[in-house]
Amino acid sequence: MRRFSDTLIDHIIAKKSFTCVGIDPEVQVGSNTSPIPTYLVEESRGDIGEAIFTFFKDIINEVADIVPIFKLQIAFFEKFDALPVVKRLIKEIHQRKGLAIIDAKRNDISSTSEAYATAIFERLLADATTVNGYLGSDCVLPFLKHEGKGVFVLVKTSNPSSAEFQDLFSMALPSLSPEIGEIEAPRGKLVRNYLQMANLVGIWGAKCIGERKYSDVGSVVGATFPTQMKQVRQVIPQNFFLIPGYGAQGGTAADIVHGVNRDGLGAIVNSSRGIDYAYQKSARKYTPRQYAVAARAAVDAMNADIENALRASNKCPW
Amino acid sequence: MRRFSDTLIDHIIAKKSFTCVGIDPEVQVGSNTSPIPTYLVEESRGDIGEAIFTFFKDIINEVADIVPIFKLQIAFFEKFDALPVVKRLIKEIHQRKGLAIIDAKRNDISSTSEAYATAIFERLLADATTVNGYLGSDCVLPFLKHEGKGVFVLVKTSNPSSAEFQDLFSMALPSLSPEIGEIEAPRGKLVRNYLQMANLVGIWGAKCIGERKYSDVGSVVGATFPTQMKQVRQVIPQNFFLIPGYGAQGGTAADIVHGVNRDGLGAIVNSSRGIDYAYQKSARKYTPRQYAVAARAAVDAMNADIENALRASNKCPW
Repeated sequence: MRRFSDTLIDHIIAKKSFTCVGIDPEVQVGSNTSPIPTYLVEESRGDIGEAIFTFFKDIINEVADIVPIFKLQIAFFEKFDALPVVKRLIKEIHQRKGLAIIDAKRNDISSTSEAYATAIFERLLADATTVNGYLGSDCVLPFLKHEGKGVFVLVKTSNPSSAEFQDLFSMALPSLSPEIGEIEAPRGKLVRNYLQMANLVGIWGAKCIGERKYSDVGSVVGATFPTQMKQVRQVIPQNFFLIPGYGAQGGTAADIVHGVNRDGLGAIVNSSRGIDYAYQKSARKYTPRQYAVAARAAVDAMNADIENALRASNKCPW
Repeated sequence: MRRFSDTLIDHIIAKKSFTCVGIDPEVQVGSNTSPIPTYLVEESRGDIGEAIFTFFKDIINEVADIVPIFKLQIAFFEKFDALPVVKRLIKEIHQRKGLAIIDAKRNDISSTSEAYATAIFERLLADATTVNGYLGSDCVLPFLKHEGKGVFVLVKTSNPSSAEFQDLFSMALPSLSPEIGEIEAPRGKLVRNYLQMANLVGIWGAKCIGERKYSDVGSVVGATFPTQMKQVRQVIPQNFFLIPGYGAQGGTAADIVHGVNRDGLGAIVNSSRGIDYAYQKSARKYTPRQYAVAARAAVDAMNADIENALRASNKCPW
């Protein structure tokens, strides 16, 4: 079976796009400004899951020829009791030759991690998922037993409080007993926790490198922290970045360039609400029924924005 | 509304038990040694979710008078496509005056964390959940907006590879620019990452202390690391520990004593498969149909084991 990283690169090149469309369902029943328009809920006789399916099926079909990969945020499907819709949307994505990440940030000990991997890859049919590496190898390796699948490990997240723990300076001192909780700082390098996590990503990913020299183990690095992104890129050159934080959170195309290697590869850039609900947010006037064409215009603009920034740095791969 | 921590203490004292029964459904269809006996699957006409419900409903009803709290591992319900059973089992637990933790180890940025909290507390009706704090306050605080509910933040997990990241020595250096990824170690205290996380737990929990002086923010600390547990107890005296790793993973009652304060409170101890599947594991002979009485015998033994260890340390609260 072809590796996830190789398939992802095929799709990026074929579609000339780094864009990952985030699928974040949001419905406010009874509100005129509901992100997923309420007429869709009415047309599905109050079935919110069905309204979510219709809305995103239409967007997927409208943009799939210019989007290599989609990311479904499972929290919102859980909130609206619409988990079965995840699998139906992933089937739509696959029919249109796209890839699907389930953003679940799962983490647990080995047998439980295996249960999560089975649920996400085999039952919900995702091609990749996000994982939190705080528990170490026991948590991450069960996901790598699934052929053709990929994971993205949280390294430096895009949210404001990510510094509280991820930016602490740390040091591995393997000669010390683990029973010692506190010591005076010895001589040596102190490295921020997010770079320690990146180092683990490099170790976990080294055994699953594809033909195109990228690993099936990627990392999540927020566009909101471009300098930190540059550091992580140096620590793990062969690992893809899933980059959140573009657009609404403040990350720009120029920031993302730091995550891209000289070969023009190594990054996919997520935008969720800026695309899903472009019909509400765009300067152009759209009616609620034009959500799919509005989404396509937003993807076109994002693709062009990122391509321009990469061309300016001689990093565009096509 | 009464705080989660106060209700938990009421239940511990009333039932004279620190035991948290872990609900980890496992079915091997067609196997004579399936943990949930296959006759239950046949009796529910192949509906695995229904077999899971029957099995654990019977156990809950058998043990609820001697168990203050239950922990449902959501990964296994996802694996068997049986999420609706989570809510049904929690209703059974509440009818028998027990509390329910959903072990989900959720973590995400703020609006997404809020969606998870809504799903877990309002839709699935859990009283508490487990959370991974790698993303910082943005991730944890949305869970604390739900009155009467609690969280347990992963601090030092029970699995062998937990050291890879959690045992790194780290230091907060707030005067340094976050753009600096690596420095020479300055003078000062280096503290293991799990103690840094414990410190954050103390901060997050300080605003939700109950009448009994315990916080609604607890932490997960594995029984397999008793010395580390002692360190964490010193850092955060007012926060409950949810202690996995007792029994099968090697943790003993003597290890758990380190997590209990002088007032005899501050810990609940989880056992999953040793109770759920006691009919298979016990030295006494049980038939598959005796799973509930076997589970009760296992809880009785565990309650007595922990009570004896606490009495020996003058920490028994009754």
